[in-house]
Amino acid sequence: MRHLADLQTPALVVDADALEANLADMAARWPGATLRPHVKAHKTTALAHRQAAHGSPGFTCATIREVEGMVAAGLGGDLLLANEVLDTRRLGALVADGARVTVAVDSPETVEAAAAGGVREVLVDVNVGLPRCGVQPDGAGALADKARAAGLAVRGVMGYEGHLQALPDLAERARLTEECMARLLAAHAEVGGDVVSGGGTGTSALNTWVTEMQAGSYALMDSAYAAAGVGYRQALHVLSTVVSTSAARPDMPAYAVADVGLKALGMDHGNPSIPGGQVWFCSDEHVTFAPDDGAPVRVGDHVLVVPAHVDPTVALHERMHLVRDGEVLDTWPVDLRGW
Amino acid sequence: MRHLADLQTPALVVDADALEANLADMAARWPGATLRPHVKAHKTTALAHRQAAHGSPGFTCATIREVEGMVAAGLGGDLLLANEVLDTRRLGALVADGARVTVAVDSPETVEAAAAGGVREVLVDVNVGLPRCGVQPDGAGALADKARAAGLAVRGVMGYEGHLQALPDLAERARLTEECMARLLAAHAEVGGDVVSGGGTGTSALNTWVTEMQAGSYALMDSAYAAAGVGYRQALHVLSTVVSTSAARPDMPAYAVADVGLKALGMDHGNPSIPGGQVWFCSDEHVTFAPDDGAPVRVGDHVLVVPAHVDPTVALHERMHLVRDGEVLDTWPVDLRGW
Repeated sequence: MRHLADLQTPALVVDADALEANLADMAARWPGATLRPHVKAHKTTALAHRQAAHGSPGFTCATIREVEGMVAAGLGGDLLLANEVLDTRRLGALVADGARVTVAVDSPETVEAAAAGGVREVLVDVNVGLPRCGVQPDGAGALADKARAAGLAVRGVMGYEGHLQALPDLAERARLTEECMARLLAAHAEVGGDVVSGGGTGTSALNTWVTEMQAGSYALMDSAYAAAGVGYRQALHVLSTVVSTSAARPDMPAYAVADVGLKALGMDHGNPSIPGGQVWFCSDEHVTFAPDDGAPVRVGDHVLVVPAHVDPTVALHERMHLVRDGEVLDTWPVDLRGW
Repeated sequence: MRHLADLQTPALVVDADALEANLADMAARWPGATLRPHVKAHKTTALAHRQAAHGSPGFTCATIREVEGMVAAGLGGDLLLANEVLDTRRLGALVADGARVTVAVDSPETVEAAAAGGVREVLVDVNVGLPRCGVQPDGAGALADKARAAGLAVRGVMGYEGHLQALPDLAERARLTEECMARLLAAHAEVGGDVVSGGGTGTSALNTWVTEMQAGSYALMDSAYAAAGVGYRQALHVLSTVVSTSAARPDMPAYAVADVGLKALGMDHGNPSIPGGQVWFCSDEHVTFAPDDGAPVRVGDHVLVVPAHVDPTVALHERMHLVRDGEVLDTWPVDLRGW
């Protein structure tokens, strides 16, 4: 049995018990096909297999590569590419081979691309308030007609209230989620179909309107979602080694440097956190931090770093290690990276 | 011949002429062994071969994987791992096979690790002002003695004035660089050896004290260094495709969404730039931007995105494409990623 101490740092480590608790909690709230876990948050088919074991038959993807990898892993029973694609030939090839792939459309161009590439099923992506992809609600019906005219089956609608996921005021988050979902339901009334897909970890306890929940971050978690009070455990850390320490000087307090930097951490939500220390800044391969009083660190110590944003952190690593009580139970390739 | 339009987006594209101009300009300023290009900025051995062709016999690395990859690519003649390492066995194996690998040390622990793992040559890493790794100047001589006592050859000192690289006031950047280098030279007087290694793209025109310059970003460049006025051309862009557009509405101006997001861009320096548009925000796989008046974009258009920080951007991609006049001349694997 390998131990944490045997791992080359920096390394993604996943607390096996925290992960299982998170998967069980979300599956209890959104059982069976009502949960369509988003694989963009972990990019790891071995973890997706665990989500399937907790009852989810279908998954959400953000990239063509994620769809291809899920099919290759035997998880191609009902995949939603919740993203607009103009060259759908790779998706069409998967469909021709028997995978079920539904793709988001929000324009005549994406409808034409889906039909041309051999995709057979679509969701109309509706702008519910986040200025990103998605047709305006009052244009959704016409786009669905276009899709059907092009020979595509329209399964329903999707709309992502991404701008609300980490809104600090929970009551406000709930009120605005209802507003966003009213737009999505209005579009759905024009579009038809069985599916109303949306949501994320931050609204998964508030969104009572979707027929399927697209949450992803709940499985591994990060400090941003922890601050948003979503109630899932921090299962992912980046294991690092202290490579340098500096004693206090008249002009500077004591600090330490660990070997996890901005090439091992998604930085768009800011610096990572270190329990027992204050993070000063990240460089390419280093984090400089001040240990709390009474928590001195020495060269060679291991430090568990909490990323601020899980999705882009995972995308920087080739593998993640499943651990319990310091033992490495399994090593999973992060096999859905790239495009 | 492949064209830009054939590339799956997002994709790193490198302007072949801009790259060659950048390499030639830096090699003219720092000829031969006075330039030790830092491969952490591009992680691509094919690009390192171009730097070697411009006269640089040695290279700087930030990770063990970078050192291993450079040796495998036949560029192991004089590699500096400008970083502290506690498990040096992989480096020692390279040395035993004939590569020349010098590693930074800043503590008794890293000296012992170098000797134990089979590394034979070190530089004493000196803290010149950036609170990261490095021994204080007044401790450098004693550490060099320890290294020599452990059987290591001490080639000299290194010290990185990383906190000055993008200082907006050039006169202040020059003044503080001199201060930092005074600390490095004081340490060098105690340590001895032929090498005084340091610097980066932002101080490469100001630092007249080092015997070898560790610049890396100059080859590909980014918007942060461009803003710092370093005088190199933007050779790297992330090619993306517009996948969605939204017309102006009473409550929102027109915007577009391209398929390059924070999983394809280093975000620690903030948002990327888009010539002809204003970037609003990045999501995992998208950038939302407002096209400038008179520069409308349509679904399917290609957009060249300028990353804010080149190093972590490159680390997210599997390959980069060398292009001239829209033609893809070559595709280089980004083969030095990971640890």
